[in-house]
Amino acid sequence: MSGLVQVRIRPARRDDVAAIVAMLADDALGRGRERIEDPLPASYFQAFDRVARDPNLALVVAEDDGGQVVGCLQLCILPGLSSQGASRALIEDVRVAGHCRSRGIGEQLVQWALAEAQAKGCRLVELLTHNTRVDAQRFYKRLGFAASHVGMTLRF
Amino acid sequence: MSGLVQVRIRPARRDDVAAIVAMLADDALGRGRERIEDPLPASYFQAFDRVARDPNLALVVAEDDGGQVVGCLQLCILPGLSSQGASRALIEDVRVAGHCRSRGIGEQLVQWALAEAQAKGCRLVELLTHNTRVDAQRFYKRLGFAASHVGMTLRF
Repeated sequence: MSGLVQVRIRPARRDDVAAIVAMLADDALGRGRERIEDPLPASYFQAFDRVARDPNLALVVAEDDGGQVVGCLQLCILPGLSSQGASRALIEDVRVAGHCRSRGIGEQLVQWALAEAQAKGCRLVELLTHNTRVDAQRFYKRLGFAASHVGMTLRF
Repeated sequence: MSGLVQVRIRPARRDDVAAIVAMLADDALGRGRERIEDPLPASYFQAFDRVARDPNLALVVAEDDGGQVVGCLQLCILPGLSSQGASRALIEDVRVAGHCRSRGIGEQLVQWALAEAQAKGCRLVELLTHNTRVDAQRFYKRLGFAASHVGMTLRF
């Protein structure tokens, strides 16, 4: 199969958690960080509830024609004083299911996030992508992002 | 004057907004983005109120012996599903007043943020620093951060 896939972007529900975690784990960097068990560790559902309660966070999924979840993205709206008090937007956890990549699904997710950020009054959208994710960097540049910053991380 | 300055880190108050905005503007990159007027544009105070209302955001200032505000930092706690549902922490808007730099104030602010992030259960702390801020990158590496990611931004 090939060609673009038109998806529906909608808020994630609690019963999407397993599909989302599977996508987070299906990744060279994510594999070592997740725990795929049946049932899933409760910590994932607790995190889902924290996200769902926070009006500044939106965890969304991309659903294909058949109602299957084939992508996800989390948008964080961050109030702050800089830039004359304009909120910033941060995009996290963009994933597309392995069998659906290069079909325009990631682009539809990110375009949704850009429109939502703009509607919420943000003037800046930011994200971190690992140094090794060269394809992702090219993808974001194509959508208008600049590689303007160094993304620094510290793990406890 | 030289030597380390011991500061007190405390939550920012509404009457700190002018001091914080002055620090945000006293910077090669910030200058063009802020509006220093008397009174300050209302958008800064509206943003302060949004930050103060959000339990996942902490805007703090560093106060010196004389009660003067000489630094600021905003810590954002971001619930999310990845890493088994551990929240992430994002550090934004770290600034030290021009006449107080290289006195350990930035380090005390960031160490406060790291301790707070850990206390809130975060396993990852992230930040973006502009490609041109080479001193800042060295500073964060000294505190344990790795330049692991590309920080990508899009301005509307």
